[in-house]
Amino acid sequence: MSEFKNVTAVKKANVYFDGNVTSRTIIFEDGERKTLGIMLPGDYEFGTGDKEAMEILGGSMDVKLPGSDKFVTYKEGDTFMVPANSKFSLIVKEVADYCCSYIKE
Amino acid sequence: MSEFKNVTAVKKANVYFDGNVTSRTIIFEDGERKTLGIMLPGDYEFGTGDKEAMEILGGSMDVKLPGSDKFVTYKEGDTFMVPANSKFSLIVKEVADYCCSYIKE
Repeated sequence: MSEFKNVTAVKKANVYFDGNVTSRTIIFEDGERKTLGIMLPGDYEFGTGDKEAMEILGGSMDVKLPGSDKFVTYKEGDTFMVPANSKFSLIVKEVADYCCSYIKE
Repeated sequence: MSEFKNVTAVKKANVYFDGNVTSRTIIFEDGERKTLGIMLPGDYEFGTGDKEAMEILGGSMDVKLPGSDKFVTYKEGDTFMVPANSKFSLIVKEVADYCCSYIKE
């Protein structure tokens, strides 16, 4: 699916790490929320509230998930899951385009 | 208007200048197209096809419009127009969040 139809797009961006990570919030008719984001090269740590599904739309990121001591590379077309209320680390070596889905449990 | 309702959001980002300028395309029911974008600090030159209305959602940008030899600062809440089929220059000193509307003439 290359487009999200019948959605609400929040105008203002979410800006993190001095703009090196930014995203836009998309809200679906059923209330589900996703963000479409860009990460510039850098090292980042993020915390989750809801469980997250991170789909890589372009580029790649090296990800260390909670409970792991190893970075795994995810590329365009890949998706990784992050548990709710956890932290994960990222090393981004090339511009990464992503879609994050927030999953209520 | 802080949200766009009943729109189509294109998943993949538009990426320019090694990711220092990125945007997402939003398509309205009547076919109108806007992009929601981020510019990181830097100097940029862009060319237009359609006429553009650039609304600053956050941060600021110094803009030299076609026919001018002077940079003018536009800040959050400001909008500037760029003629169709022209070039304009930008100096961005702080992360800038914008909404660009493409106007058919």
